[in-house]
Amino acid sequence: MADAARVETLRHFRVGVASDNKLAEGFDPVTEGDRAAERAMRAVLAERRPEDAILGEEYGAQPGITGLTWVLDPIDGTRAYISGTPTWGVLISVNSEEGPIMGLIDQPYIGERFEGGAGLAAMTGPLGTAPLKVKATRDLADATIFTTFPEVGSTAEGAAFHAVASRCKLTRYGMDCYAYALLAAGQVDLVIEAGLSSYDISAPIAVIEAAGGIVTDWQGGKVHEGGNALAAATPELHAAAMEILSDA
Amino acid sequence: MADAARVETLRHFRVGVASDNKLAEGFDPVTEGDRAAERAMRAVLAERRPEDAILGEEYGAQPGITGLTWVLDPIDGTRAYISGTPTWGVLISVNSEEGPIMGLIDQPYIGERFEGGAGLAAMTGPLGTAPLKVKATRDLADATIFTTFPEVGSTAEGAAFHAVASRCKLTRYGMDCYAYALLAAGQVDLVIEAGLSSYDISAPIAVIEAAGGIVTDWQGGKVHEGGNALAAATPELHAAAMEILSDA
Repeated sequence: MADAARVETLRHFRVGVASDNKLAEGFDPVTEGDRAAERAMRAVLAERRPEDAILGEEYGAQPGITGLTWVLDPIDGTRAYISGTPTWGVLISVNSEEGPIMGLIDQPYIGERFEGGAGLAAMTGPLGTAPLKVKATRDLADATIFTTFPEVGSTAEGAAFHAVASRCKLTRYGMDCYAYALLAAGQVDLVIEAGLSSYDISAPIAVIEAAGGIVTDWQGGKVHEGGNALAAATPELHAAAMEILSDA
Repeated sequence: MADAARVETLRHFRVGVASDNKLAEGFDPVTEGDRAAERAMRAVLAERRPEDAILGEEYGAQPGITGLTWVLDPIDGTRAYISGTPTWGVLISVNSEEGPIMGLIDQPYIGERFEGGAGLAAMTGPLGTAPLKVKATRDLADATIFTTFPEVGSTAEGAAFHAVASRCKLTRYGMDCYAYALLAAGQVDLVIEAGLSSYDISAPIAVIEAAGGIVTDWQGGKVHEGGNALAAATPELHAAAMEILSDA
C-alpha cells in the first residue's frame, strides 16, 4: 500500500498541482496527490483485504466484518506537500477496536519508511536500515520538543503547549508526521499536537509504541480515535508534560 | 567541496553526536559535524584555490589576494541537524566585493543540491535534475511564506514579519536554508528572516537570483554581508513585503 501511494504522491509533488480548500472558513488544502494516493491504497485493500473496514481522510469510512480497520492518511501534511517541503508523509495503520496493531510513516521523496508493530520496529532510508528506539531523556530541560504550528489548538491549549516548550531545551516547528517518526527514531523527545483526527495519529502511535515510546491524549487516555496528542520518549517526560497539559 | 562536506555531515547525523553551546546566554549549538565539514571544505580550497580568501562559520576569516572569498556554512540549521530533521544544509558561495557570484545549497541526507550563478540554475535530487525557476506569484494573498523561528528578530521585527505573514495564504516554519532552496525551485514565494550572518545568506542569494528571484535586506539594500533578509519570487511580492517591513 505504501509503495502504491508513493507512485501517486510523487507524481503530483512539486509540479504545481492545484490545491482545493476543504473548509468554508480557514484553509485545509487537499490535492489530487492526496486523492490518488488514497485510491491506490484502497485498490490494494480491495484485492488483498476486502473484508476489513477502511477509514481514510479523503474517502471516509467503509465498513468491514473482520474487526480490523485500515486507517489511511494519504498525505499527512498537505501544507508541507504544496510547499515542496519533504516532511509530509503517508500514514497507514491497521487497528483493532483497542487501537493500532501495526503502522507506518512513509516519506516518499526522501525514500524513508518508519514501521512499527507486530514485532517490527525499523526504518529504511537513504543510509540503509536501522532499528527504531526512542531516546532515554528523562528531564524536560534536556528535551527537544516538536509541534507543527506555533498556534496549537485553542488559546488555552496553545498556552499549555508553550508552558511545556518553555521548559524544554529546544522547540521546533513545521514537521507534521515526520516529527513522530523522529521521536521513534531516537532523535527528538516530545511531540505535542491538538485537534488531530484518527488518521493523523493511529500510525504514529503504532510506530512510537514499537520503538518504546508513549502516546496518549493530554489526560493520559487513548488517542487513536483523535484529539490532543502527547507523544514522549520516556515515562518521566510523559508525566512531566502531562502534568502541565492535563488542565488545558 | 560540497561532496567533501557531505561525507562529514552524514558521518555525524542521527548518531547521537553531542552539541556544544556557542553562547554564554541562549543556545547556539555546534557539533563535530559542523567543524569536520568546514575543515573538509577548507582542505579542498587549500589545494585548489589557495590564494582566495575564506569566511567560514566555524573557523573564521582567512585573507586572500585574488579578490574572491569563499563563504562557508558547513551546517546551516544545526538545530535541525541535532534533531534529525533533513532540512539543514551546507552553504557554499564564492563572492566578489559586490556579492555572491555563484553558490549552492546542499542537503546531504536527501541527496539534493541547488546551484545558481555563472549561467547555472539547476537542482539535482531524488527525482533527477531540473532547472531552478521562481514562481510568478504577484499578490501576497496568493503567497506561501517561510521563516525558521516564529520569533523573528526583535519584537518590532517579529511584528513586521507577522504583519506580512498575516496577509499571505500560508505561513510555514522550521526549514532553515531549505526554505531558500524551495523559493529558487518555484515551490514557495517569500522567505523572511532576521539577524543573519554573511554565511547564512550569501549562497541563498546566488541560488535565488539565478532562478529569477530577488534577495535584499528589509530596506531594499544588499544583504550578502548579513542582516535581515527578504527573499521574494517576484518584484511585486518583494515591493509589497518591503512596504510592511521597511519601518521595522
